[in-house]
Amino acid sequence: MTPAVVLLSGGLDSAVTLALALTEGFEPVALSFDYGQRHRVELAAARRVAEAFQVRDHRVAQFDLRVFGGSALTGDITVPKAYSPREMANGIPVTYVPARNTIFLSYALALAEVIGCADIFLGINALDYSGYPDCRPEFLLAFEHLASVATKAGVEGTRFKVHAPLLTLSKADIIRKGTAIGVNFLLTYSCYDPRADGAACGGCDSCQLRLAGFREAGLVDPIRYALE
Amino acid sequence: MTPAVVLLSGGLDSAVTLALALTEGFEPVALSFDYGQRHRVELAAARRVAEAFQVRDHRVAQFDLRVFGGSALTGDITVPKAYSPREMANGIPVTYVPARNTIFLSYALALAEVIGCADIFLGINALDYSGYPDCRPEFLLAFEHLASVATKAGVEGTRFKVHAPLLTLSKADIIRKGTAIGVNFLLTYSCYDPRADGAACGGCDSCQLRLAGFREAGLVDPIRYALE
Repeated sequence: MTPAVVLLSGGLDSAVTLALALTEGFEPVALSFDYGQRHRVELAAARRVAEAFQVRDHRVAQFDLRVFGGSALTGDITVPKAYSPREMANGIPVTYVPARNTIFLSYALALAEVIGCADIFLGINALDYSGYPDCRPEFLLAFEHLASVATKAGVEGTRFKVHAPLLTLSKADIIRKGTAIGVNFLLTYSCYDPRADGAACGGCDSCQLRLAGFREAGLVDPIRYALE
Repeated sequence: MTPAVVLLSGGLDSAVTLALALTEGFEPVALSFDYGQRHRVELAAARRVAEAFQVRDHRVAQFDLRVFGGSALTGDITVPKAYSPREMANGIPVTYVPARNTIFLSYALALAEVIGCADIFLGINALDYSGYPDCRPEFLLAFEHLASVATKAGVEGTRFKVHAPLLTLSKADIIRKGTAIGVNFLLTYSCYDPRADGAACGGCDSCQLRLAGFREAGLVDPIRYALE
């Protein structure tokens, strides 16, 4: 099997992405990040998901984006509630973390080069993407080009590929696809502002996108919500 | 004054780069990295250099590249001695750290976006560059393009610029230029394999490039070497 680095946040999208990498015949090396995020509970979810799919190599890279501040996910800005999808589409929300996916992919690239693979899987999505600039196709193409000139492997001919199999899917499609290939969504976590007992808040934009996706797919989200 | 993020390792090149940013009228925000490098003594050098130039904002981002291994600077590979410049030019040495400058610039980009500036200074060099692929002009251009599509600021029109004022200079030229604009090279540090007493080894490729540069510039390197 060909190894591939799979970025695994513990959220719904990354779990489906991991399952798709397996379906395509890759041997996943999972990479998660402990970057001072509020929703660190998602790291536990990442471990559960990796175990459920019998991933043999799961690495957690620690770093501290809080040194930069500037985002509701890492600083002191309050996570906003009750954005409608239309409102979300009209701007880049405060939950945007500056250059986050650039940093994540840079780490994935380092790991890919060390283990000698060319494939990186990333669960970003351009439809329900909440307005993040680093969740767009042009970002992926720019990163692939960078990888080809930035690394020893690239200079020696490796063509790095960033796979974003969810890029053009709706949240409902992602949930349908994940259900079809055996993802247990009970193991996943999406909330930006979880309760002390682990329940999802149900109000942040991530919860809203998830709940709307399950509704549209005609399925019930198995995780617990504080607003139920 | 316009702020600019200046990557400051504490080495000779980054000290000259910081001085050049000041000469060009920028207000530097220095950014250093604590990434598990053997030569952590260079972080103390970075602090000395920042203080000497009265930098008001100096941040140290911690992360652990050792999770990846794969380089003499971060893993268990022995730092090679007595490379000739010709040997160095013929390949990418084991001191290459996979995707290091990509990760460093990603952090610099995050900080630049948070503080609202478009300029990043980086002391890389394409002549004496030891064969690192991420010390080449095509790497810088690829990163600038990535920055323009990866960030909120880029999407809103900021044109990020990675300044590499040393890119085409020889080590001797860098030393001459630094001397002319007031860099105290005694504060800087370059060795990959320092002795317990802080002396530079004099044998690693970084020491050799530095010593040859001072010789060619007709100047004396003020730091201590173990081989003297």
